[in-house]
Amino acid sequence: MTAPEPVSKSLSVNNPSSANSSNNSATGLDKLLELTKEDMSRINDLILAEAHSSVDMIPKLAKHLIDSGGKRIRPMLTCATARLCGYQGLDHIPLATSIEFLHTATLLHDDVVDESDMRRGKKTARLLWGNQASVLVGDYLLGQSFKIMVSVGSLEALKILSNASAIIAEGEVMQLAATNNPEISEDDYMAVINSKTAALFVAAAELGAVVSNRPEKERDALKQYGENLGIVFQLVDDALDYHGKAAELGKDVGDDFREGKITLPVILAYQQGTDQEQKFWQKTLGEGNIEENDLQQAIDLTTKYATHEETMARARNFGEKARISLEIFPDNQWKDALLHVVDFCIERGN
Amino acid sequence: MTAPEPVSKSLSVNNPSSANSSNNSATGLDKLLELTKEDMSRINDLILAEAHSSVDMIPKLAKHLIDSGGKRIRPMLTCATARLCGYQGLDHIPLATSIEFLHTATLLHDDVVDESDMRRGKKTARLLWGNQASVLVGDYLLGQSFKIMVSVGSLEALKILSNASAIIAEGEVMQLAATNNPEISEDDYMAVINSKTAALFVAAAELGAVVSNRPEKERDALKQYGENLGIVFQLVDDALDYHGKAAELGKDVGDDFREGKITLPVILAYQQGTDQEQKFWQKTLGEGNIEENDLQQAIDLTTKYATHEETMARARNFGEKARISLEIFPDNQWKDALLHVVDFCIERGN
Repeated sequence: MTAPEPVSKSLSVNNPSSANSSNNSATGLDKLLELTKEDMSRINDLILAEAHSSVDMIPKLAKHLIDSGGKRIRPMLTCATARLCGYQGLDHIPLATSIEFLHTATLLHDDVVDESDMRRGKKTARLLWGNQASVLVGDYLLGQSFKIMVSVGSLEALKILSNASAIIAEGEVMQLAATNNPEISEDDYMAVINSKTAALFVAAAELGAVVSNRPEKERDALKQYGENLGIVFQLVDDALDYHGKAAELGKDVGDDFREGKITLPVILAYQQGTDQEQKFWQKTLGEGNIEENDLQQAIDLTTKYATHEETMARARNFGEKARISLEIFPDNQWKDALLHVVDFCIERGN
Repeated sequence: MTAPEPVSKSLSVNNPSSANSSNNSATGLDKLLELTKEDMSRINDLILAEAHSSVDMIPKLAKHLIDSGGKRIRPMLTCATARLCGYQGLDHIPLATSIEFLHTATLLHDDVVDESDMRRGKKTARLLWGNQASVLVGDYLLGQSFKIMVSVGSLEALKILSNASAIIAEGEVMQLAATNNPEISEDDYMAVINSKTAALFVAAAELGAVVSNRPEKERDALKQYGENLGIVFQLVDDALDYHGKAAELGKDVGDDFREGKITLPVILAYQQGTDQEQKFWQKTLGEGNIEENDLQQAIDLTTKYATHEETMARARNFGEKARISLEIFPDNQWKDALLHVVDFCIERGN
């Protein structure tokens, strides 16, 4: 599953004024939330308008996801990178909205594929309205996403977004093919998360430079930032699945384990594991034969080999790369906010 | 389900030279097949190239559908309308390919939603590789469809295609909402088939005028042609589900009945039915309580009220509208071929 955004009421986009700067997490997303408040309000309006349809089921399902507490980090990235590049127009609003629609469609389909019952602490759309509606409304949101981006009239932006949509789907298929195989290599795992998660972060960040007509160098820097941030995001999410708290995750600890999903904490534990431990991973993740205490044993094995810490160390490394990629930009509040997003993502996992 | 194309070896696109002009069906698709042979060969190459991916599962599933005997009537329409408009270039090739990808993605998702086991006389991808792979590979094909159309660089074409993709998905959701409700009106049914089937025929035909930069009047005429032909196509398919032969359908007679799908032959029989007959439709289609002889009884009821004939009469009426819409074009082999497509679609149902 694509990493869901953590649920945190104090960080709700729908009410950014409630972000409490005396809170420890104030150094995280709050700066970005405050700076993009006006843009995100425009995006919110556009999301609501474009999720509309005379076919009842569509706005019902779409709103369920839209209202479910996602922080809209991807469209915020487009807003922030556009402003970082000095953009004064409004073309980034529909582009950021189409990014969020693309993401929302992916979540709907992900939940069907993963047979997930919970997302962001709420029942999934597929549990409430069925798999059929989730597949079709996901397709509708993809179509709307596509319509919105076409409306901007930028072929450059369209290339980026169409490319991202194919790469994301390819990553999801790669992940499906790797399900139940704890022997996959770290390289294969990285290829999956690069495609299924980082690709949309890359597109979101790159669009900021594209709407601003900035030179290749800045565009590349923002792509690097997006890619590394996206990897951090997914690594932390994968680490939390074994060592997080349900309230932070917005889903249950062990979901990846139950779904037979092979993530870095498992790959690292498998590689270092004894024969008996490898057999355990094969039985549980490989064959889907999961008994009552197996999740605890999985957690114990990731603890034994400190794979949570190792996964977080990689995340910090990618986070550093994300930070470095912004060095070519002048210091200002936007750059500062984008740097803090990296901290925010990493701190979730600590 | 979106109307599948009939299976007929003599009409195979992959081997159009086998089309036998002494055959009765030679007045149907054969003219179009012969005329578009070169263009369709280019499209075939592009389809194979763009269905490629290093992720094994993607070309495997895509090829299963691509090779399964669909006649590619939609991309052929784009080729023929472009040539009818005097177009000499090659931009219609990728556009027609993206139309076929969009259609193929819809079929993959349709089969998941309908829980279909057979399509065009072959096992469905979802039966062979599972629903999960079908959903995700469908998304990949949507992404590829989108990439291909962006590569042409025509914002006008992108508007048409993005719009069509949202309308098709909306139609599929409408159909899902109407499932199991034999009381839906004929208007609602027409709205469903206009969206889920005719919209892509409209786009396919309109693109011919768009790549050729033809005036509004010709563009509108081709849209009318596409819309009416698409409606014919779906009406005939719905009629055949109760009175066709499995070999012609490429699926089993009664699939719509078993899936609780409400189509015109049922709506007309329900409207004229006695209380007891309406109760029969409610029990079978409404509640999904289908016993051994119920399909035969359903067929008998559509026979009693001649709803097959009535559905075909509507189809002929829409076919006539499709023909009339081409009157503004000069007589030539392309127009002739497009007129014969209408006959071909209607003759399937007779």
